[in-house]
Amino acid sequence: MKKNTIILLFLLFALQGYSQQVNSQDSLTIRSIYDMALLNGKSYDWLDYLSNNIGGRLSGTLNAAMAVQYTKEELDKLGLDKVWLQPVLVPKWTRGFPEYAYLETGPGKTIRTDVCALGGSVSTSEIGLKAGVIEVQGIEDLARYGREQIEGKIVFYNRPMQADLIQTFEAYGGCVDQRYAGAMEAAKYGAVGVVVRSMNLRLDDFPHTGTMTYGDTPVNERIPACAISTRGANVLSSTLKLLPSLQFYFKQSCTNYDDVLSHNVIGEITGSKYPNKYMIVGGHLDSWDLGDGSHDDGAGCVQSMEVLRLFKEMNYKPKHSIRVVLFMNEENGLRGATKYAAEAKRKGEKHVFALESDAGGFTPRGFSFDCDDLNFELVQGWEALFKPYLIHFFERGGSGADIGPLKKPGMVLAGLRPDSQRYFDYHHAANDTFDAVNKRELELGGATMASLIYLFDTYGVLSN
Amino acid sequence: MKKNTIILLFLLFALQGYSQQVNSQDSLTIRSIYDMALLNGKSYDWLDYLSNNIGGRLSGTLNAAMAVQYTKEELDKLGLDKVWLQPVLVPKWTRGFPEYAYLETGPGKTIRTDVCALGGSVSTSEIGLKAGVIEVQGIEDLARYGREQIEGKIVFYNRPMQADLIQTFEAYGGCVDQRYAGAMEAAKYGAVGVVVRSMNLRLDDFPHTGTMTYGDTPVNERIPACAISTRGANVLSSTLKLLPSLQFYFKQSCTNYDDVLSHNVIGEITGSKYPNKYMIVGGHLDSWDLGDGSHDDGAGCVQSMEVLRLFKEMNYKPKHSIRVVLFMNEENGLRGATKYAAEAKRKGEKHVFALESDAGGFTPRGFSFDCDDLNFELVQGWEALFKPYLIHFFERGGSGADIGPLKKPGMVLAGLRPDSQRYFDYHHAANDTFDAVNKRELELGGATMASLIYLFDTYGVLSN
Repeated sequence: MKKNTIILLFLLFALQGYSQQVNSQDSLTIRSIYDMALLNGKSYDWLDYLSNNIGGRLSGTLNAAMAVQYTKEELDKLGLDKVWLQPVLVPKWTRGFPEYAYLETGPGKTIRTDVCALGGSVSTSEIGLKAGVIEVQGIEDLARYGREQIEGKIVFYNRPMQADLIQTFEAYGGCVDQRYAGAMEAAKYGAVGVVVRSMNLRLDDFPHTGTMTYGDTPVNERIPACAISTRGANVLSSTLKLLPSLQFYFKQSCTNYDDVLSHNVIGEITGSKYPNKYMIVGGHLDSWDLGDGSHDDGAGCVQSMEVLRLFKEMNYKPKHSIRVVLFMNEENGLRGATKYAAEAKRKGEKHVFALESDAGGFTPRGFSFDCDDLNFELVQGWEALFKPYLIHFFERGGSGADIGPLKKPGMVLAGLRPDSQRYFDYHHAANDTFDAVNKRELELGGATMASLIYLFDTYGVLSN
Repeated sequence: MKKNTIILLFLLFALQGYSQQVNSQDSLTIRSIYDMALLNGKSYDWLDYLSNNIGGRLSGTLNAAMAVQYTKEELDKLGLDKVWLQPVLVPKWTRGFPEYAYLETGPGKTIRTDVCALGGSVSTSEIGLKAGVIEVQGIEDLARYGREQIEGKIVFYNRPMQADLIQTFEAYGGCVDQRYAGAMEAAKYGAVGVVVRSMNLRLDDFPHTGTMTYGDTPVNERIPACAISTRGANVLSSTLKLLPSLQFYFKQSCTNYDDVLSHNVIGEITGSKYPNKYMIVGGHLDSWDLGDGSHDDGAGCVQSMEVLRLFKEMNYKPKHSIRVVLFMNEENGLRGATKYAAEAKRKGEKHVFALESDAGGFTPRGFSFDCDDLNFELVQGWEALFKPYLIHFFERGGSGADIGPLKKPGMVLAGLRPDSQRYFDYHHAANDTFDAVNKRELELGGATMASLIYLFDTYGVLSN
């Protein structure tokens, strides 16, 4: 018994020594990842090009094609083991002429306001749409007012994002149904159009677009839908209180086309030990058309490219195959994500880990994990390694839309969680431009992502 | 023994019940503080006025006097127990005409560049100063070059802030001696002027001012000092490599005047239980003159005012006397802080706690504490209460310049620690304006400060 105890103690000390050695090596590696990203990073330059030399990258546009070509060329320069384009058919919708809208409070008395068509919306007629307005606080109000009060009117969805929620994505989740399904639902009550308060916590003049659906609504019953800026929504609401009979006018000339060919952009460092086990990191290359898509999601793309660039620069040879995937068409179709997952399945590629950055290029705070308990405990064991970089948020939760289709039991999906306070100031709006991205914040995000992937590559995804 | 055990267990359960009750009450109170700040806060409106209706508030200027009057009036409206002005003499330095500078690479060949006088610098002569340039990486280089290489030249201090430091204040600390003491030290080697690389991690065209000292340098030996933008510094450095004989010209027309009368602004809610024990919260009301001083430190002032407004709005009656102190002249003299501490000492006011916000109105991450172990352990016991608000940084460290003079054994001094990544993009520069402040980030800071003060008021500062 005594002898066994001594052996046990010896083993424990040996293991502890090993574990300290490993942690100290991890700590040094992570320090060098951050140093390289902050002193000699490439992500900011890439984003500058994507934003300022290409611009908004709506699926099916020439800009989106240019972004595919540019990012492929840049990945080619990194000396990865493979870089390729994965073809995918994407929807094509265009905004057409700039939208125009006003409140009419009497003959010749109008107040201009800022609107934009929601992505996927039908056009108004060529002379625009003018009708009375009924303000509601959400889809659930429609049944209360009923067809008699809604028919022939424009439904104005005005439920604001809840400012007292600390994590702004929760506030977004509490409102976005108005934008996504508002037109489809209002059409059932005979509405002729919908105006949706922008998903923005700030009071300003930028209308925020975003995807919407008509569901099964027959083509001839589809009604046009636009977003109004938060300040415009306040003006409309307060003017309605004074003059419930006011008329709202808007004109938009958007068009839906047949699907067109586009591509996911993929680069790979093939694993030295487990070449057939894949760990992927990505963002989506498409964006809305109003701004440059710098935060959403140019930032996520260049951070993901930076992960592989850092690994090459530090001459790190991963055990698993590490892929960067720049997904096409997250915003209005998720076709790139669907295609990537289908191809992975068809080829029997075993994906064990996926990380997405699609919450803006702001100071990283941590990650949310969609995984089992075993792997979440593994992650929690790494928290101390991240503390010097002020990375503190390690929670269970969703990961990212593009990696969602890969989800399987035993796999780890993760989403980078940057500071979210300013995200909806820019999200899907004309001010989502390069100047709104801070270089250090962007670079810290890429380094944080590379560190997590380094750790998962080193210790592996655990299986139950 | 059994009986005693039962009593002990009973006591333990009772205590646990009490402790849970207290924590649940704390948790509710803190939730309501954040709700009020985010849904109905006043700090952003106050900052709008300070920045856009008053502007930069350099000590001794009319703007500073207007800021004193405005904030006193706003505090008067809150229904505090006392609001008053504390007179203090402050230095008065003016920038005069806009600065002008260029590199001269040959007869009639000039490159314009952006500079600004450092605060407290003497003027150049009326026709400006033109001389050859010697570039150094810090004060320690002067001895290496010696008088023979420095005499008659302009010393160009070009050590950049270190980008690989995660906490940007550390990077600032590693450079700021060039700005503060660079002129004094260079004069000892016969330099005729100094140009200092701006304390900015970003590459842009804004020169950043800040305070400097001549120490004991006789008046007739003081040389003019200016800051050059980071981009300007890079251009100067690379041009010097091509043409070491280039001449640098700059002209500034600043003036030092006699001290003038100004004020600290103070408001108080008198304590219900310990009226003679003081807890203070503050920022500094003065700012540099180039921007509006929105982040430095308009933000800290309005957040501190918000703490007392929140307490009044929630009808919280603190046990200790809680004061908001808006200090005058932090930037170039610290006279307000010195005066406040001297008056507190003279009147025998026992200060037990002080909190300063002077690191920008960015998303709050936590606090640094200058206190003994006992109170730091107390704070650590509260960490879980802050977790829902993503407040995670509780470290030992400095607090704030204005509350420093109050320091005494047994007292707790604390500094709000917001995200620091963007702070030096704006610090002491013309772009430190209202539009660079995000409403939610500012409000979260005020709520976080109010929560900490609520806890210290409730549980008291512990004494050894």
